Amino acid sequence: MYYIGVDLGGTNIGVGAVSEHGEIISQKSAPTLTERNADEIIKDIARLCKELVDELSAGGDNELVSIGIGSPGTIDPINGVIIFAGNLYFHNVRICNELKKYFCGTPVFVDNDANCAALGESISGAAKGYKTSVTITLGTGIGSGIIIDGKIYSGPFFGAGEMGHHTIMMGGEQCTCGKRGCWEAYASATALIRDGKRAAQKNPDSKILKLANGDLSKINGKIIFDARDSGDETAETVVAQYINYLAEGIANTINIFQPEIIAIGGGISHQGDKLIIPLTEKVKPLVFGSDLKTKIVKVKLGNDAGIIGAAMLGK
Amino acid sequence: MYYIGVDLGGTNIGVGAVSEHGEIISQKSAPTLTERNADEIIKDIARLCKELVDELSAGGDNELVSIGIGSPGTIDPINGVIIFAGNLYFHNVRICNELKKYFCGTPVFVDNDANCAALGESISGAAKGYKTSVTITLGTGIGSGIIIDGKIYSGPFFGAGEMGHHTIMMGGEQCTCGKRGCWEAYASATALIRDGKRAAQKNPDSKILKLANGDLSKINGKIIFDARDSGDETAETVVAQYINYLAEGIANTINIFQPEIIAIGGGISHQGDKLIIPLTEKVKPLVFGSDLKTKIVKVKLGNDAGIIGAAMLGK
Repeated sequence: MYYIGVDLGGTNIGVGAVSEHGEIISQKSAPTLTERNADEIIKDIARLCKELVDELSAGGDNELVSIGIGSPGTIDPINGVIIFAGNLYFHNVRICNELKKYFCGTPVFVDNDANCAALGESISGAAKGYKTSVTITLGTGIGSGIIIDGKIYSGPFFGAGEMGHHTIMMGGEQCTCGKRGCWEAYASATALIRDGKRAAQKNPDSKILKLANGDLSKINGKIIFDARDSGDETAETVVAQYINYLAEGIANTINIFQPEIIAIGGGISHQGDKLIIPLTEKVKPLVFGSDLKTKIVKVKLGNDAGIIGAAMLGK
Repeated sequence: MYYIGVDLGGTNIGVGAVSEHGEIISQKSAPTLTERNADEIIKDIARLCKELVDELSAGGDNELVSIGIGSPGTIDPINGVIIFAGNLYFHNVRICNELKKYFCGTPVFVDNDANCAALGESISGAAKGYKTSVTITLGTGIGSGIIIDGKIYSGPFFGAGEMGHHTIMMGGEQCTCGKRGCWEAYASATALIRDGKRAAQKNPDSKILKLANGDLSKINGKIIFDARDSGDETAETVVAQYINYLAEGIANTINIFQPEIIAIGGGISHQGDKLIIPLTEKVKPLVFGSDLKTKIVKVKLGNDAGIIGAAMLGK
């Protein structure tokens, strides 16, 4: 008995066969090639799923329970529709019905990719064993998935959980969503890189610029943290302020949901304890009553969370 | 068949017999007299409940289903304990067990008063017929109660839903909670009055001060709105900025929960459409994708919401 999870990204399609305990048994991938239309992309998803089915069938396991898809964008999980996914050029794609044409009788589910990652972490990752958790992904933007009593909370209109787009600084930095002052405009990897570049321009002797070989456009999150670790004062200021911004949104998440655990993912989370420990210290006094009950940890599954969570949509 | 709800406030104890449809059949009240110890206050609650039981019994209704208590402060609803309620001077009061001594065999429940108000509005008030709603009370602070699928969401540690203490302006106005920049420090009635006073001091010719008979300490929310309605420019600026602050937190609530409806209560909500219409206009562009699906309305039950919601804890 196994489940198939599909992580439909702007660059790659990852497909995995997942056990009922949320472990990946086998996986395949292919480039998404978003210049293609939805039908062709879905055909490719079906092909990858079929390869997994054949492989597991050869190993004696014939019982595929369901297929789940994690997609970026706005999803209607009830009707199985990707309403809008900008980076896939998808508009109102009835992906569940389309995929069912290839897998007659197999239930097919779809949900937002950030929700799937959160469900994956909840079932077999960092938030395993906790009923209520939030997974925050620090990337180009801030992705977030809310799990309440073991289930994804996406609200009655399926668009809830946009923690990245809650304002922490009214009238502040411009966000890609059109609003000013969103948490994402301060605590995403993109925001850290922007602040690192600004600081490097003001302080050209900083190690940030040296580690980027003098090329501003090559500054990334790791370079900023590395410069900080080497004792560079400019980088120290940028990282400390970044952690302040991150802490403010994490504390807001706690004051609102008070989950048992918050798991932090994305490239920046690779800093591990160098991020998590000072972050936790900054969060404590910002929590209502300074009473921090929520654990703050690094995600465990990394990129696999999307496939595992998508697969578990059918569990 | 009826339920009893207790609204335990810092000034008064309100007790009501409530039908299964969430309508108050009869109610009693008494001053809380918080200088008394918990035992004496609970004895008074029991007396008021007993009076209702006797009254309904005389009318032929002998079936009291349960008693529910709405209390300020931090509540443990599972164990029936008021952990801490500053304005009642209560610490770890096992109120459910204590009240059961007077009503042998009747189930007794307790929850936070803001949660009870939200449940009341959800069952028979402004949010009736909606599964997922948020009730926001603009008073001394900002109270909030989250209803998901018809049930109070208070999180695994019972302290969730502190919308008033999410930061909208990092490093901004001092909040009573110790943090800076909380929504409550910008959008509570207290914050409006503070901003009205500041504006009146800077502009002594403003009608705000005139309507307060020249006495800064007499400025209240109604005076500021009345001055605005009379065409006073200073008041117009204060009210417009207040609505901006309120909108920012309402939009955050929507981006996070995307409820079907948000009901706004407290003294300021008596402004009705003069508040709700411009507020809704300000919220629209702040909602993710500018796609406002959530209705924003005034509460319906007012002060009765606490009693009704407390009664419905046992439903």
